[in-house]
Order: sequence, then structure tokens, then C-alpha cells
Amino acid sequence: MPETRPFVSLATDFGAAYTAICAGVVHTIAPAANVLVLSDEITPFDVREGAMLLRQALPYLPVGVHTGIVDPGVGTPRLPVAIETGRGDVLVGPDNGLLLPAAGKLGGVVRAHALENPAYRLPEVSTSFHGRDIFSPAAAHIANGVDVADLGAPVEPLALDVPPPMIADGTLTVPVLYTDRFGSLVLGAERDDLAAAFGDLAPGTRLDVTWETGTARLSFEETFGSVAPGEPLLWIDSSGWLGLAVNQGSATDALGLTGADTLTLRKTD
Amino acid sequence: MPETRPFVSLATDFGAAYTAICAGVVHTIAPAANVLVLSDEITPFDVREGAMLLRQALPYLPVGVHTGIVDPGVGTPRLPVAIETGRGDVLVGPDNGLLLPAAGKLGGVVRAHALENPAYRLPEVSTSFHGRDIFSPAAAHIANGVDVADLGAPVEPLALDVPPPMIADGTLTVPVLYTDRFGSLVLGAERDDLAAAFGDLAPGTRLDVTWETGTARLSFEETFGSVAPGEPLLWIDSSGWLGLAVNQGSATDALGLTGADTLTLRKTD
Amino acid sequence: MPETRPFVSLATDFGAAYTAICAGVVHTIAPAANVLVLSDEITPFDVREGAMLLRQALPYLPVGVHTGIVDPGVGTPRLPVAIETGRGDVLVGPDNGLLLPAAGKLGGVVRAHALENPAYRLPEVSTSFHGRDIFSPAAAHIANGVDVADLGAPVEPLALDVPPPMIADGTLTVPVLYTDRFGSLVLGAERDDLAAAFGDLAPGTRLDVTWETGTARLSFEETFGSVAPGEPLLWIDSSGWLGLAVNQGSATDALGLTGADTLTLRKTD
Repeated sequence: MPETRPFVSLATDFGAAYTAICAGVVHTIAPAANVLVLSDEITPFDVREGAMLLRQALPYLPVGVHTGIVDPGVGTPRLPVAIETGRGDVLVGPDNGLLLPAAGKLGGVVRAHALENPAYRLPEVSTSFHGRDIFSPAAAHIANGVDVADLGAPVEPLALDVPPPMIADGTLTVPVLYTDRFGSLVLGAERDDLAAAFGDLAPGTRLDVTWETGTARLSFEETFGSVAPGEPLLWIDSSGWLGLAVNQGSATDALGLTGADTLTLRKTD
Repeated sequence: MPETRPFVSLATDFGAAYTAICAGVVHTIAPAANVLVLSDEITPFDVREGAMLLRQALPYLPVGVHTGIVDPGVGTPRLPVAIETGRGDVLVGPDNGLLLPAAGKLGGVVRAHALENPAYRLPEVSTSFHGRDIFSPAAAHIANGVDVADLGAPVEPLALDVPPPMIADGTLTVPVLYTDRFGSLVLGAERDDLAAAFGDLAPGTRLDVTWETGTARLSFEETFGSVAPGEPLLWIDSSGWLGLAVNQGSATDALGLTGADTLTLRKTD
Repeated sequence: MPETRPFVSLATDFGAAYTAICAGVVHTIAPAANVLVLSDEITPFDVREGAMLLRQALPYLPVGVHTGIVDPGVGTPRLPVAIETGRGDVLVGPDNGLLLPAAGKLGGVVRAHALENPAYRLPEVSTSFHGRDIFSPAAAHIANGVDVADLGAPVEPLALDVPPPMIADGTLTVPVLYTDRFGSLVLGAERDDLAAAFGDLAPGTRLDVTWETGTARLSFEETFGSVAPGEPLLWIDSSGWLGLAVNQGSATDALGLTGADTLTLRKTD
């Protein structure tokens, strides 16, 4: 049976109710759309966390219209944009870097246009709830077949500002991108960065990790189950990021890592 | 492509799992329905918060069957009701005032009937989970085309008890309706009430606000971005209510407003 | 209008975003499926809570493919399984007892097969996110019509380990299964166990309850509303379990029951 329902996802820092209002706007304008709330619980105003979530999640969602809204600049002149990707998705949201890492995972930016055309906004646009009044209507109209170029002028979308991993003197220094709900840290480096710093790391290799306020010793492992419950490990998570976790526990609680911004890794002597 | 799937929304104070059970009941009885969870995280037993959410959200959802359940009286003789609105929606829930403000926004109450007909309940009705056993089946059967009048006797639904804003001696005293997840207060007054108290307020006008345990000075603004991050403002939120917020922060945390019931506003001398 | 969309539910301890990624995988593989998130907020690693939720909820969901994932053993050799039930559902998840109590409510286990066939996994299987890479693809393919036997070898699924209620010397000792978000305890006993311990209990009968660190007196009632707000009661909840609750309040807060593992009930002299 062919399935032609357009697919629309929503990821926001609004909480359940405001996100559902956005879903309601999509359902009203595009009643045939299949709407998935990817997240309504991004940490408020945390553009980086939202960007990492979209980058991680969207490759697993159907080709569709993906709306991402973490928007500290609502009410200021930052642009709303729609970005068409190489895979055929359209990403809709504020032009603050939120959407770019995900676009990179979806075949890159093909074209981007500002959301300016009042025909594709709600009749009345509030100053604070652009998710409802601008982003969701644009997403719904695109799901209905409106061409991205009809939304407004072409734009060059802004990149997300994330510090790159740094290698020096046998250390790898990486930013903490976010902490998931299990208290595991996701770090801004991938397997290649690890290899560039330390060569080919065998599972079980011991590492020292230091941060602003503490230090810990742990092993690099392929799986959680390779360390005892309660023990920390460094590993490559399911989306390819370096992660610091505790088997069946919380790394932030167990190691006092809450609030850590940057970690430095070094092989234990 | 015409889309004829009936639309059903659910807003509850049950949490995710119990609300999803209600959604499951709707899907079982009305498999063609498009079901949206508007919220599963209304503060438990807070009828006023739920009523304000429905009033704010439902105008943005498709015409459909909207189930609202915040029901401190479950297990007592309060009536379950279905309310048909001028827009063509049917609101389903307990008759405790929860649904009335939303009905007012949807063209008013056309007719209301008690949910009495056992044919439109689950075969076994528990004493505590009327969301699953009475409200969701009723919503699903209405979505399937059952006439509201077949559900039970006509009733006159109860109004929600909210104190009105009061104007006296150059002050406007307003109830706190609820606090959103960003820590912003939504107040029980609209732009007209503000104008009645203070005349036409220019953006940037300074106001003093006092409550049971504190006081603050802030400005009336059209947008969050008009004040520096961390600074408070009074504004008109996206659904037309007066709001007290802090730009990129939490008003309850920054000003110590947690638990405030009533605010009094006065223009700064 | 006939509705032939297959139904898929998801219940996990992953939080919203990771669960939505699983939903995205289902939508990608089975675009016609109707996907419901039953819960994304099971307490992390709490297999018993997840099992009780599935047992309580699934009878109210449409016949379909129900995915339950609470998986402390991810990354170890525990089996992933699909269990066909007497009602015609297929339950998909880790073979750690999570799915068995629900299968018992859905007509029992008809057959169970390991999820081994790489054709029904994502091309790349991570060591940590089997929800995305193994369970969701299997659920989607089953929803598309793949026979359970094509997934892998037949297996005998493991049972959930829950202590049974015990009767001795006029007392009933029961395990605490979980605490719901209202702070009410769900206990591992049903009406029959209560009758076996105490005979036919009339509403209003007074009982003493003791646990590791405290004691309380309460009455057995049919409904919350039978006791004053703030008063505790013992009752039979809407899924047939014995429950300990406080009318319009939290039993764990009011009685200091947080962390209680086992309760002993006795009729007050």
C-alpha cells in the first residue's frame, strides 16, 4: 500500500503544551500530514543541545519537513529560515545555527530561504510565539507542497558555533555538548579525533580525564556491559560521538561532572 | 487530497502513560482518528491551569473532539459532559469549569449533554479512571459520528471560577493563572484591562508590581528582546494574556514569585 | 470506513528524544503505521515498573505491535525477542521479563522468536541503542506483515521476577511495584489476595500498614472521594491492583513512604 502522507517533525524547548499547539497548527493547515514530536524538552534556550539532537535524530526519521525551534532571539530581527537538504528534507526554524549540523548529516544545504511570505504565516503574528505563528505554518505549507523558494529571499544560513576538539602533547581536549537524561555526557569529538590523539585505542585502555573541578580514571570500552555497574567508561555512542558514561548509573552524579564545559583526556601512564 | 480523518485531542494531568492509555482507547474505538496529546503534564488537580491551557490552545487545533481531564472530583457525583461549540468542536471532560473558557473561544456553548449512555462507555467503569472508561470512549464515539444528544440528558455546564481583574486607585490587581515551564507568570487580565487601568501604555513604561511577599520594578514591553537578558518585563503574551517574564530567564526564580496568587500593578511615579 | 493502518506502540525509559528516534525508524520502515508513544518516562532501568505499565496499558490499546524497552542488559548477550500473544499482538523488546506480565493479560504467549535476522535490523547495529537499531526495525517490519518466525529461532521467554503476596497470622505482606506520578503506591496484590487474607472487606474497614521505616492507619475504600482530602486510603486501582493513595495528595510525601519496598497490612483491632 503506497503511503503518501507527508511527514512533519517538531523539536522544541517549549514543553508539551506549546509544542502540541504547533502540532495543532500543522494538523489544521496540512490535515494529511503525519506529525511526530521529536522533542518538546530541549533545555530552554540551549541551541547547541537542540542542534546536536537534530543532527543525531533526523537521519533516522523519514524524509520530510523537520521543524527545530530553540530561539533565544525571538522578538529580535534574527531570520526565520527553511533549509532544503541533499536528502530532500526541509528544515524549518530560526537562523541561529540550530539546523546546520543536521543539514550536514542529511546531504548538506541545497538552498535556504527566509520565511517572509505572509501567505505562509498565521494571519496574526505574535512577537513571542513564532513557533506557532511562523515556523509551524511554514512547515505545514511546505508539507502541502509549497516550494521553499516561495517563502522568501534566498539566504546563507548561519553556522553553529561549537569549539572543535583540540590535540596537544598527548591530550585530547573536547567540549561537553550536552548531558542526556541518564547523566551521560556527549562530547564534541568522534572516533577519528580519538584516533588522531591516541592512535588505535584498544578496548580496556585506561585514560585519565580532567575538567574544571575534578579528575577521574576510566577505561575506553566498546559497550556499557564491559565495566561493572557503577563504573565509568569512555565510549563511542550510538550516533558516533565520544561519550562519558557510568554503567547503569549517572556519570554527572557519580563523578561530580555537573556543569563541566570541557574535558581533557590523556592515556594513563 | 481530501482528509476526512476525525481529529481528537487529549489534555490531562495524568502523565504520559495514563494519557497514552486514553489515546489507546480512542485508537481502539475510532481507528481512523488522528489523535494528538495536547498535554499530559497539567499540574495535578489544577483545574484553572488546565482551563487556561485549553482556552489558549484549542483555537489553533483543527475542529474536532477535544478531551480535557483535570478532575479532582473523580469518584464523586460530578457530571461528565460533552459540550458542542459554535465552531463545531465537541469538548469532553468533567463538568467542573475546565472546558468553559475554551468553549468561549470556540464560538460558545451550543449544547451540552451528560455522558450517561453505557453504550458509549467501556463495559466496566472504574471509580478512579474515568479518563479511560468514560471520557475517552465518549470522545472516540463522537469522532465516529455519534450525536452528542445520544450521550445523555442536556445539561447546563458549570463555569470556571476565576477572580476578575480589579481596578482601583490607579492600580490593577490580577490573579496569577499559572506559571509556565520557563517560570513566566500568566495573569488573569488582557490588554483591555491594562488600558482600562492605565490608559494607553507606551512600551518602556515603568511599573511597580507587588504581591503577597515581595515587590519588583519592571517595564511594559512588546517583546522579550526589548529588555536585557535577566531583566523582568510585563507584556501581552501570544494568547492575549498579560504576562510577567524575565528575558532568557525565570521570573519565579529571579523575583521570588513562586506561589504568588495575586499581583497588583501601579505605574512608577 | 475500514481502517487498515497497522498499530505500533512504544514504551521506553529513554526520554522523549530517543523514543522519538525509535518512532522515526518505525515511520521510515512502515510509513502506514499508526505510532503511539505509550511512555518515554519509565524510571531508567526499572524493568518491574515497565512490566507493570505494559501489563496495565496494553489491554486498552488496539491489537498491534507493542515495543517495550527497559534494558539494563544492553551490550550484554541478553536476547532481543518478539512474543506473539493470544489476542494477536506482537510484543517486541529485551528478553528480561519486561514483556511477560503484559503477554499474560493479552491471552498468553503463543510463540516467541529471537530477533536475529539482519534483514530486519538497521544496516549498522550499535552496541548501546538497540531500541533504534534492533527493536524498532523489528516492530516496523512485523507491522508491515513479516511473520514472527522469520525473525529468528524460537525461544522460551524469561519471566519477570516479582515476589508474590504473602499471607500469615492475619497479615498480608505485599511488594511495592511502583509509585505513580501522583505519589500513589501500586502494590503487588489484587482483590483476591485481599479477600484471602481478610475475608470480604467492607468499605470503611480500618487497616494498619507497616513498612521498613514507618506505620500508618487508613481505611479500605472503593473511591478516593470516600475520604477527606489529605487522608490516606487503601483501594483497588483501575487495573485491579491494590493501591495506597492519599485523596488529592501524595501518599509518599504524606506518609513518608518514599523508598518503601514491602508493606504489611493488618486489620485494626
